[in-house]
Amino acid sequence: MKHTLSVLVRNHSGVLSHVAGLFTRRAYNIESLIAGVTENPSVSRLTIVVKGDERVLEQVIKQVRKLIDVIKVYDLHKTHSVERELLLLTVKLQKSTRCEILQIIDAFGAKVINMSKDAVTIELSDTERVIENLIEVMMPFGISDVARTGVLALPIS
Amino acid sequence: MKHTLSVLVRNHSGVLSHVAGLFTRRAYNIESLIAGVTENPSVSRLTIVVKGDERVLEQVIKQVRKLIDVIKVYDLHKTHSVERELLLLTVKLQKSTRCEILQIIDAFGAKVINMSKDAVTIELSDTERVIENLIEVMMPFGISDVARTGVLALPIS
Repeated sequence: MKHTLSVLVRNHSGVLSHVAGLFTRRAYNIESLIAGVTENPSVSRLTIVVKGDERVLEQVIKQVRKLIDVIKVYDLHKTHSVERELLLLTVKLQKSTRCEILQIIDAFGAKVINMSKDAVTIELSDTERVIENLIEVMMPFGISDVARTGVLALPIS
Repeated sequence: MKHTLSVLVRNHSGVLSHVAGLFTRRAYNIESLIAGVTENPSVSRLTIVVKGDERVLEQVIKQVRKLIDVIKVYDLHKTHSVERELLLLTVKLQKSTRCEILQIIDAFGAKVINMSKDAVTIELSDTERVIENLIEVMMPFGISDVARTGVLALPIS
């Protein structure tokens, strides 16, 4: 079972490796993690996607809450939220495939950010499923590089 | 001086807290960190933005390279790359400000992903500078929530 956690933390050096370490010690798999700033420069938001046993997760969340620099932990499985992911991808181009690849990029609503005669680099922000579909569709053309943020989420009212 | 590092790692539990720990031990400030999957399920890419002394960074990079699960470290300052960031933001709405806020969203090329009578949640993927400009423009209306990925980067040829 996948869970997305949103953790507000004070910007002290070490808080990131402490939080990640709590999951590691339980052999709990972190699928993706984003540590980014918020509108308050002294506060960061960690968005963590984890997969594993529900009961163990409850225990890990309890330990995360006890860390001195942790302000708040949301289990987004239990609240309404929006989730998006950002993808940067470079796919190989040939004269014979260029037109088809550009049409696919357009159909997905992705944006070209760099293009040469051999390759095109695109960006797309969308749901995890759409990001995975795009990667699958591009796979046969030859993907030379991929960077994904993993899920970024925000609780909504 | 800000540096963006792109680190390819084998997906072993613990690699994330080890890498983050190396920066922490030198009191080196991690501004943002993204750990996401790649096209190869056994490999993740860490994109790390750090700020601090150039000479210390060289030493930390050397130590990161020595970690057993680290495959490759790119200092994107030294290669061509594209950089993008994803923002999710909820701004408060009033009847009197709705029209203006929706026009700003449109002007930035951002997308509405949730809207109620009191608030609107938007997504935007763009450069760090544009993301920061949007946040600044929205600030006077009352921002209720922000999630940012920090910089995601990809080396390009």
